[in-house]
Amino acid sequence: MTPQRITVLGAGSWGTAFAKVLADAGRDVTMWARRDEVATRIREEHANEGYLPGVALPPNLTATADPARALHGAEAVVLAVPSQSLRANLTEWRELLPREAILVSLAKGVELGTLKRMSEVITEIADVPAGQVVVVSGPNLAREIAQGQPSAAVVACADHERAVAVQRAAFNSYFRPYTNTDVVGCELGGACKNVIALSCGMAAGMGLGTNTMATLITRGLAEMARLGVKLGADPLTFAGLAGVGDLVATCSSPLSRNRTFGERMGRGETVEQARAAGGGQVAEGVMSCSSIRELAAGLGVDMPITDAMHRACHEGIDMRRLGAELLGREQKHEWS
Amino acid sequence: MTPQRITVLGAGSWGTAFAKVLADAGRDVTMWARRDEVATRIREEHANEGYLPGVALPPNLTATADPARALHGAEAVVLAVPSQSLRANLTEWRELLPREAILVSLAKGVELGTLKRMSEVITEIADVPAGQVVVVSGPNLAREIAQGQPSAAVVACADHERAVAVQRAAFNSYFRPYTNTDVVGCELGGACKNVIALSCGMAAGMGLGTNTMATLITRGLAEMARLGVKLGADPLTFAGLAGVGDLVATCSSPLSRNRTFGERMGRGETVEQARAAGGGQVAEGVMSCSSIRELAAGLGVDMPITDAMHRACHEGIDMRRLGAELLGREQKHEWS
Repeated sequence: MTPQRITVLGAGSWGTAFAKVLADAGRDVTMWARRDEVATRIREEHANEGYLPGVALPPNLTATADPARALHGAEAVVLAVPSQSLRANLTEWRELLPREAILVSLAKGVELGTLKRMSEVITEIADVPAGQVVVVSGPNLAREIAQGQPSAAVVACADHERAVAVQRAAFNSYFRPYTNTDVVGCELGGACKNVIALSCGMAAGMGLGTNTMATLITRGLAEMARLGVKLGADPLTFAGLAGVGDLVATCSSPLSRNRTFGERMGRGETVEQARAAGGGQVAEGVMSCSSIRELAAGLGVDMPITDAMHRACHEGIDMRRLGAELLGREQKHEWS
Repeated sequence: MTPQRITVLGAGSWGTAFAKVLADAGRDVTMWARRDEVATRIREEHANEGYLPGVALPPNLTATADPARALHGAEAVVLAVPSQSLRANLTEWRELLPREAILVSLAKGVELGTLKRMSEVITEIADVPAGQVVVVSGPNLAREIAQGQPSAAVVACADHERAVAVQRAAFNSYFRPYTNTDVVGCELGGACKNVIALSCGMAAGMGLGTNTMATLITRGLAEMARLGVKLGADPLTFAGLAGVGDLVATCSSPLSRNRTFGERMGRGETVEQARAAGGGQVAEGVMSCSSIRELAAGLGVDMPITDAMHRACHEGIDMRRLGAELLGREQKHEWS
């Protein structure tokens, strides 16, 4: 039942760290990297210095730049590409996916345009039932896990048996996965937390301290739970590792790209300047704030922090004004 | 209805910062300080350098070392003394309390021996109905509030009118209180978070990173909510400012005494060494872990982190062993 031959598509920091988790759990792991030189270095030197400097990868982890070779015989396929390119990538790989393979999503986001969650994109493109897709989430900063620091995670699947299969495949001395059947809640937690981390970064960049960060985390948790419940998620999920856990890790770590990106904006840089400083990529939350905002608006769900981030990133609204708006609401009961 | 003449008993950092909040909201505030020189400096130099260095206190905030003078004519009395000395202090002041005054508790803890919450100690000693006691909690690091950084808080009271009265009394340009009627949840959140902060400090002292901190916060939140629900608290409270909010602020700030104390222990110091380094005082969580553990045991509530902290602080158990125990449990569902 436990998949032994596992393929990881994508060689960024989280894809590589999760491939290492699986290999350290005793699986035979093959990574696919877009660039041949990255694949070669992983295969021959057991290193992916660009993403995980100083980390030695185990010998039972190999890599190739050929997706057909990577996917041949896979019992589970881990999708570790950015959320907004998942559709295009998966469309390319569709014919290569073994029919019975469990598809595991590490991507966190809501697709622009379609407003679909990543598992919805996967079931649509790969044409598999929802119960064949497993989502991994939790307080999982890639670099810390790659260093072997003890971490907990959630593996969620509509089919409990497949969640257990991935749990067993990934369980090792430092990585402890818990199963959950609430795929919607886990995915929304993962997508929304990037937006809240962006706001925490902005606050820090403006010189605000821990009280503000804790307040943004708390109110951010409330707004993501409101959206989740409306979409059928279990509210308990947001109180767990894929909700509070992932949110706190991403918002408080200096390693978080979303937080760092927000900090630059809080110090006065534009999205373009922050993008250039971050190596040409925008943070995930810069895109997700727009798709999540649109999703919430269609459902009549109030998400003031997400809305503020969209306006700061895409409408050029001054952040000081947003801060005053968020705090200046009338005196009321905490949950009204 | 809004109290205008307010007395704050206790001149530590949070008592002083909250007195400043009230004065900045336009109230006439009198502080009581045990030491005459502290009262004199607050009254004459508008400063309390020992606790809030660099902070200028407003002119409508005065101070005295005489409790009778401090309490004369007070419409609200704020209790800002350490939780384990609240009973003794309040017994001294009992005859001086104006009968109708709202009693506001800033103390966070569970009393050793009696296992009572602070508001229970207050109603018992002051002999007032529960609806006359208001609890203030939330992500409120004193130093940041004293600097005028925007912060949100919860004012909880069984009597909604009195919660609103304190909300109005404290509302100013940087301090935004929300009302709540769940006194039990707010108080337990405040007491338990010190214990979890102690554990986060220990983990940091042992060299562990953000994933571990976020996991301790998540599982800590779960165990405090289990205890709270058993005692009749509203689970939503733990998802709010007095739960997650206060917990995240205390656990992630380098200004938190409990976290700092835990860090020293995580680096190998004993409770006695950490106490000496901290100016002779033990952190609140060192005492609360024992009273909360006893309270939980009597109710059959499982609190593994609190239990681990009690064993580390009072039974000399090696922390590395505790860490392995906390992580080494069998593979399971997140909420089983």
